[in-house]
Amino acid sequence: MRLKDKKVLTVVDHEFEDLELWYPIYRLQEEGAIVHIAGKEGEHTYTGKYGVPAKSDYSFDTIQIEEYDGILVPGGWAPDKLRRYDEVLDMVKFMDEKQRPIGQICHAGWVLISADILRGRKVTSTPGIKHDMMNAGAEWLNEAVITDGHLISSRRPPDLPAYAKAFADALAENSK
Amino acid sequence: MRLKDKKVLTVVDHEFEDLELWYPIYRLQEEGAIVHIAGKEGEHTYTGKYGVPAKSDYSFDTIQIEEYDGILVPGGWAPDKLRRYDEVLDMVKFMDEKQRPIGQICHAGWVLISADILRGRKVTSTPGIKHDMMNAGAEWLNEAVITDGHLISSRRPPDLPAYAKAFADALAENSK
Amino acid sequence: MRLKDKKVLTVVDHEFEDLELWYPIYRLQEEGAIVHIAGKEGEHTYTGKYGVPAKSDYSFDTIQIEEYDGILVPGGWAPDKLRRYDEVLDMVKFMDEKQRPIGQICHAGWVLISADILRGRKVTSTPGIKHDMMNAGAEWLNEAVITDGHLISSRRPPDLPAYAKAFADALAENSK
Amino acid sequence: MRLKDKKVLTVVDHEFEDLELWYPIYRLQEEGAIVHIAGKEGEHTYTGKYGVPAKSDYSFDTIQIEEYDGILVPGGWAPDKLRRYDEVLDMVKFMDEKQRPIGQICHAGWVLISADILRGRKVTSTPGIKHDMMNAGAEWLNEAVITDGHLISSRRPPDLPAYAKAFADALAENSK
Amino acid sequence: MRLKDKKVLTVVDHEFEDLELWYPIYRLQEEGAIVHIAGKEGEHTYTGKYGVPAKSDYSFDTIQIEEYDGILVPGGWAPDKLRRYDEVLDMVKFMDEKQRPIGQICHAGWVLISADILRGRKVTSTPGIKHDMMNAGAEWLNEAVITDGHLISSRRPPDLPAYAKAFADALAENSK
Amino acid sequence: MRLKDKKVLTVVDHEFEDLELWYPIYRLQEEGAIVHIAGKEGEHTYTGKYGVPAKSDYSFDTIQIEEYDGILVPGGWAPDKLRRYDEVLDMVKFMDEKQRPIGQICHAGWVLISADILRGRKVTSTPGIKHDMMNAGAEWLNEAVITDGHLISSRRPPDLPAYAKAFADALAENSK
Repeated sequence: MRLKDKKVLTVVDHEFEDLELWYPIYRLQEEGAIVHIAGKEGEHTYTGKYGVPAKSDYSFDTIQIEEYDGILVPGGWAPDKLRRYDEVLDMVKFMDEKQRPIGQICHAGWVLISADILRGRKVTSTPGIKHDMMNAGAEWLNEAVITDGHLISSRRPPDLPAYAKAFADALAENSK
Repeated sequence: MRLKDKKVLTVVDHEFEDLELWYPIYRLQEEGAIVHIAGKEGEHTYTGKYGVPAKSDYSFDTIQIEEYDGILVPGGWAPDKLRRYDEVLDMVKFMDEKQRPIGQICHAGWVLISADILRGRKVTSTPGIKHDMMNAGAEWLNEAVITDGHLISSRRPPDLPAYAKAFADALAENSK
Repeated sequence: MRLKDKKVLTVVDHEFEDLELWYPIYRLQEEGAIVHIAGKEGEHTYTGKYGVPAKSDYSFDTIQIEEYDGILVPGGWAPDKLRRYDEVLDMVKFMDEKQRPIGQICHAGWVLISADILRGRKVTSTPGIKHDMMNAGAEWLNEAVITDGHLISSRRPPDLPAYAKAFADALAENSK
Repeated sequence: MRLKDKKVLTVVDHEFEDLELWYPIYRLQEEGAIVHIAGKEGEHTYTGKYGVPAKSDYSFDTIQIEEYDGILVPGGWAPDKLRRYDEVLDMVKFMDEKQRPIGQICHAGWVLISADILRGRKVTSTPGIKHDMMNAGAEWLNEAVITDGHLISSRRPPDLPAYAKAFADALAENSK
Repeated sequence: MRLKDKKVLTVVDHEFEDLELWYPIYRLQEEGAIVHIAGKEGEHTYTGKYGVPAKSDYSFDTIQIEEYDGILVPGGWAPDKLRRYDEVLDMVKFMDEKQRPIGQICHAGWVLISADILRGRKVTSTPGIKHDMMNAGAEWLNEAVITDGHLISSRRPPDLPAYAKAFADALAENSK
Repeated sequence: MRLKDKKVLTVVDHEFEDLELWYPIYRLQEEGAIVHIAGKEGEHTYTGKYGVPAKSDYSFDTIQIEEYDGILVPGGWAPDKLRRYDEVLDMVKFMDEKQRPIGQICHAGWVLISADILRGRKVTSTPGIKHDMMNAGAEWLNEAVITDGHLISSRRPPDLPAYAKAFADALAENSK
C-alpha cells in the first residue's frame, strides 16, 4: 500500500458535494492513507448538498497542518463558506508553499482563488466558475483532470475516477 | 407613481435567494413599475433556496431586452447557473452599454463578472465573492448599498430596504 | 424618512407566510421605522411556510406594547397558532383601543377575530376565511387593500406592494 | 358487520391531517362500510401534513352524493381549501338536510362554517377555531367527541378512538 | 369495553410505517386498552417513514414486560433497527413463551425472525420479506390477516382494519 | 488499465445507499471498466436514501446479462424492492452459475437471499440482516470484506475502500 505513511486533510462545510467529498477519502484509504475531515467545528455533522452526512474529526483551529501530506477541497456550495475562513486559506497556502498535493474539484476553486495561489497555474473546474478562475490568474482548461505540479483539479463528479487517481499518484510521488 | 411607465426585467433560476428576488419586485410595483420574471424556461416554476416559488413570465430567448428600463439579478445559488447562459450575459451587457440600471445583490455579482462589466466599477456583494469581484476589476466596498452610475449593488437580505430604494431612484432618474 | 421615530411590532409563529412577514418589515425599515419581531419564545428561529427563517427579537411576555406605534400580523398558518395566545390578543386589542395601525394580511384575520375587534369594520382577507370574518361582524370586500381607520387589510402576497404602502401611510399619519 | 351496506364519502385536499383522514376510513371498513375518497381531482395523490399519501377515488364533480350514507371531513390545513369548493359545501349541506351523519374533526369545522350548518348545534373542534365555530352560531364544548343528532365532532388525533366509534354508531343507527 | 383491563406495548424506532404504528394503538384504545410506546430512548420523538411523529412513553430498559398483555410491532424500516436490540427480542420472546398476543405487520416480521419464534408458525407479511420469513421456518400465506394461536400478522396498511380487529379479539380472549 | 475490457452491471431502485452505489461504479471506471446502471425503468432518475440521484442507463428487461462480467448490488432500502423483481433474481442467479463476480454490501444480501444462492457461502453484511443471511444458509462473518469465490461482500460504507478493491481484483482475475 503505497500511501500507508501518508496523512491527508479534507476541509468541509455544509452543502459539500456529497460524492466529491467522499469518493477521494475512500479512494485514498484504499491505498493506506489516513484522511482526516476538518470543519469550523470539530466532531460536528455536516450535511451534503443532497443530504449525505460527514462528521468532522477536528476543528480547523486544532489542525497542525505541517503534519499533513496533502489537502483536498470538495465542491458543492461548501467552498463559498470555506473561502471565508482564514484558517482554511492559511492551510491551503501552506500546502502550496511546501508544494504538497492540493486537490480541488468543481466549485472548490473558489477557495484557491481566495488563497491567491492560482496565478500562472493550469487548472480546470466547473465551467460555472471559469471566469473567476481566469480572473484569478489561472489558465483554464476543459479536461477531466489537470495536474500542474502539486495542483490537481477536476470539473465534476463523473471526473472522480481520474481525479482521485491523479491525487493518489501525486501523493505517492511527493515527499514532504 | 413615478415608475408607472417603467419596465424592469428580473432573471431567475432555481435556488434564488427568496427575499432578494421578491422584495425588489414588489417594491418597484408599489411605484407603478411593471416587473417581468425571465428564466431559461417560460411559465416555469422556479424554487428559491428556502422554498418560495417564482413562476417565470417569459423564457430568456423571447425577451426583447431593449423594451426594458432596468434589470435585476437576485442572489442565492441561482447566479451560479445564470452566469452560464449567453442570453443572460447579453442582456446584462446591453443594459450596461445603454447605461440603464442594473441591480445586483449578494452572489448576483457572479453574473456581472461573467458579463465582464465590472472593470473600474465600485461595488459591494456578499463578502464570500469579494475576491472574485476584485479579480474582475471592481473596487469592492463593504456598505449596505453602492450606487456607481447605473450599477446598484448590495450585500445581503438586511440591505434590501436600501437596495430596492436605490434601484427605484436610479430607475426614476434614468431616461432610456 | 417620515417613519424614523416609529416603532412597529410584528408577531410570528411557525409556518408564517414568508413574504407576508418579511416584505412589510423591510418596507417600513426603508422609511426609518424600527420593527421588532415577537414570538412565544424570544431569540428563537421560526420557519416560514416555505422555509424562510425569522428570528424573534423578543418573547411576547417581555413586550411593552404601549411603546409601539403599530402592529403587523402576517398570514400563513401562523395565525392559527397566534390567535391562541392571550398576550397576542391583548396586544391587538390594545392597539385597537388606542387606534394605532393594525396590519393584517391573508389568514391574519383569524387573530383579529379572536381579539374580537372586527364588528362593523370593513376588511379583506384571503377568500378562504371570508365567512369567518363576516361571522365575526366584519363587512368583507374583495380588494387589494382596505383601510378602515387604523385597520389595514390585504388578501395575499401580490397585494403586498399596496398593503405595506398603506400601512406606512397610516403609521406616518397616526400620532399615538 | 353492521355497516356492510353503508357507503361513506371522505373529502380530501393537500395537507390533510394524516391520521384524521386515515383512521376513520380504516375503522369504518372494519365493520364493512365502503369508503370513497373524493378530491378536486380524481385518481390524484394528495399528501398529508406530515407526508402520508392518499389517492382520491373520484373527483368532486363526479360524485352522486345521494348514494352516500355519511360524509367525513378530515382536519389539518385541507379544510382551508375544501371550504372554497362549492361542490364540497353542497355535499355537506345535502347530508345535513337529509340528516345523514357528518363527521368533522380538528380544523374540519371550517367547512361546516362555510356550509352554514352550525347554527344552534353543539360541536367541538380544535380550540384554535373555537371562535370561528361560535361566531357561526354553534355552541362549542371542550369534549373528546360531541354527537348532536347526525353531527359528530372531535378535537384532535387523540380523540380518534372515540370519534370514529361515534361516527360508526351514528351510521349504523341512521337509515337514509 | 372488553379491553379495559388490558395493557399493550408497542415498540418503535425511526421510520416506522406511520399508519401501521398508530392505527392499532387508537383501535385498541377504543375498547379501553392502555397502550404504551417504548423506544430505545424514553420520552423521545420518533418520526415515521412519511413524517408522523410518535413520542415514546418509556425506554426499553425500564419496561416490566410481564405487566403487558400483548405486544405490537409496526412495519416500515423501524423493524430493521428494532431487531438489533436485545431488549426488544427478549420482550418478544417472553410474550411468545407466555402465549400472549404478538401483532406484526408488513416488515415487522424481521423482529420475529431475530427473536427466532417463527419455526412452524403460519404467518403473512409484506411479500418483500417472504423468503426471510420462510427461511426462518414459517409457513407463509398471502392473506390479509393470519391468526396462528397468539401470533397475528398482516401484510400492509390496507389490511389494518382486519389486523387490529384480530389483535383486539385475541387480546380479549387471552388470559395471562 | 486491467479492467478495460470488462463490463459490469449495477442494479438500482429508490432509496439506494448513496455511497454504496456510486463508490464502486467510479472505482471500477478508474481501471477502465464500463459500468451500466439498470432499474425497473430505463433512463429514469432514482434517488438515494440521502438524496443523491442516479439515472438508470437501461431497464431490467432490456439487459443481455451474458454480456456482463460482474454484477453489483448496492445497499440501503433499495434491495427490499430489488428482491421482488424476477429479472433481478434471474440476473444474479445467472452470474452465480457462471461464477462471475457478484458484489453485495450492507442490505444488498436480501437480493441474494431471494435469489437463493447463499447456501454454504461465507458472507458478511450489515449486522441488521445477519439472521436472514444465516437462515438462508450462509456462514456469516463480521469482517470488512469477505471474498468467497466469486462472491464479494461488505458490511457498510466505511468498508467501501476494501470492498471495491476486492471486487475489482475478482473482476480482473475472472475470465468469463
